[in-house]
Amino acid sequence: MRAVTIHGAGDVRVEHVPDPVLRDPTDVLVQVTHTCVCGSDLWAYRGVSPREPGQRIGHEFIGVVTETGREVTTLRPGDTVVAPFIWSDGTCDRCRTGLPTSCPRSGIWGQPGADGAQGEAVRVPFADATLVRVPADVDDSLAPALLTLTDVMCTGHHGAVAAAVAPGRRVAVVGDGAVGLCAVLAARRLGAEDVVLLGHHEDRARIAHRFGVTATVRSTGEEAVEQARDLSGGRGFDSVVEAVGTATALRTAISVAADGGTVGFVGVPHGGDGSVDVRQMFYRNIALRGGLAPARAYIPELLPDVLSGALDPAPVFDCTVGLDEAPDGYAGMAARQVLKPLIRL
Amino acid sequence: MRAVTIHGAGDVRVEHVPDPVLRDPTDVLVQVTHTCVCGSDLWAYRGVSPREPGQRIGHEFIGVVTETGREVTTLRPGDTVVAPFIWSDGTCDRCRTGLPTSCPRSGIWGQPGADGAQGEAVRVPFADATLVRVPADVDDSLAPALLTLTDVMCTGHHGAVAAAVAPGRRVAVVGDGAVGLCAVLAARRLGAEDVVLLGHHEDRARIAHRFGVTATVRSTGEEAVEQARDLSGGRGFDSVVEAVGTATALRTAISVAADGGTVGFVGVPHGGDGSVDVRQMFYRNIALRGGLAPARAYIPELLPDVLSGALDPAPVFDCTVGLDEAPDGYAGMAARQVLKPLIRL
Repeated sequence: MRAVTIHGAGDVRVEHVPDPVLRDPTDVLVQVTHTCVCGSDLWAYRGVSPREPGQRIGHEFIGVVTETGREVTTLRPGDTVVAPFIWSDGTCDRCRTGLPTSCPRSGIWGQPGADGAQGEAVRVPFADATLVRVPADVDDSLAPALLTLTDVMCTGHHGAVAAAVAPGRRVAVVGDGAVGLCAVLAARRLGAEDVVLLGHHEDRARIAHRFGVTATVRSTGEEAVEQARDLSGGRGFDSVVEAVGTATALRTAISVAADGGTVGFVGVPHGGDGSVDVRQMFYRNIALRGGLAPARAYIPELLPDVLSGALDPAPVFDCTVGLDEAPDGYAGMAARQVLKPLIRL
Repeated sequence: MRAVTIHGAGDVRVEHVPDPVLRDPTDVLVQVTHTCVCGSDLWAYRGVSPREPGQRIGHEFIGVVTETGREVTTLRPGDTVVAPFIWSDGTCDRCRTGLPTSCPRSGIWGQPGADGAQGEAVRVPFADATLVRVPADVDDSLAPALLTLTDVMCTGHHGAVAAAVAPGRRVAVVGDGAVGLCAVLAARRLGAEDVVLLGHHEDRARIAHRFGVTATVRSTGEEAVEQARDLSGGRGFDSVVEAVGTATALRTAISVAADGGTVGFVGVPHGGDGSVDVRQMFYRNIALRGGLAPARAYIPELLPDVLSGALDPAPVFDCTVGLDEAPDGYAGMAARQVLKPLIRL
């Protein structure tokens, strides 16, 4: 089958790789129908996050079950499924308490030895626990929105939940990438009346407004902090979602937070030394919560809203390519000409 | 009157200073009966936290009101009062939402231009809002326990609250100073069945056991992390209080936390670069909350338990001196021969 592989900075290829086969009795095979490129794939593409040469890549996919292991009980060939970006066993203490990302048997698609999401098929471990089945009669037009549940929408939601977004709380989102935009949607869904977005891309601001943002701050650095704080009436924001992953973005998030406020951080830390100055947090009693989104735990809550149309994150995909054009999707995203490319197989 | 002043590293003196006078109509004057030395005073004494030569010092005191400004309505001469370590106006948004430490008109005893707590008398701004009156018939033997409400007990409580201590959660406290010991008391009071203390002083472990600690870890570094995690059944602690303020202690606190757990940090950040590595927090979904304790907001909750004897933090004072012997108290504490000296006037 064909799959995307990464060979070095700026070098992703579509290559022939062995077809996946069932290995464990709890596995299923999924034929991928839709996948996409994540901001964290881009850190590998830029050479910031190391990968083995030829390693598979991509961790977001939906598709159709084609074969099931003998211990699989809830899935059948033909089922349409959403795959969270991390698989998990569903039986451990962590899975049962809503943190499948910390399951000792978890893994991420595309890690060495595992199929990447950007390919024609994927072997799924612990399939009953990992995959979420979609009702059979769902319209194909919902596929892009369903695809966001694999990572980006759940990650935006995690940021908003971690930042304790609730009605009556002032909310800011730092970062206008797809995660930041999904955090805007999530914050509105959780009852925030006003959401301020910090991000300097004009085209993304348009999506943000469609998603319900109240105001955008397009400047950077100290000027952005000042403008954002002005928009909060000078007091700062009760809930701030950090959706970039750089030390600068985290510093900005803390700086625009109100004293006693909470920063929900979901940008994968990369570059720099991964540190945050705790002094400002200490003297202003600012909390920092978040991390890797437990997507599997959130999908059951968000899926009904996607199916009803109440939640539609699909506009984060501003470009659709075929699998063979995946390298163009990476290049466009790296050049910031594309927000998030959907790959349709 | 006499008061303690600091002139440089290792140089605290008892000197004659001007008697305080009422300045604003909302002021009162308090004759100090009991004060003490805090771990954060020690950072000044060690030359780590800068002070102006001759600056007043000390921020924990209880005493008796001697004079009231004409706009003071709730206090009268003769009232026994507990003073939180930070004064606040009681009328602003921050004061009304439980975060008086962020009141724009707040200040700390001993800051330039303000009386320190280690002296015979203190001018108290916004006295109606700042001070908490103690019932007239309270026995003098409760004075040391009441004194802990000015800072150390409220700070330990803040750490436990920030760490989300609750019945059924596994709890660890990093640091066996007076704040760490008070955090043990606070955690037990909030329903923790098991509390593990990380700290290597044998004499303090004895107080900790009296305060209800289940186990102590006296090793340091990686060995301490490993032993503590073993005591948690390998999973880590749901709630961890960091009560030291060094980068090492914060790293230890995060390392012994369970995935999805919460670190409540109340050690005043000092030395080093004040940074924390967020990567471990991110991949394990560990939250960091806390900061400067809003003592004024906690005293009304803790005072009844101190008055009833249900909460007795007094054993953190292992030495009592007179005001003229305050420098000996500092020296003993700096040499780790004294845990926390009480100064009785």
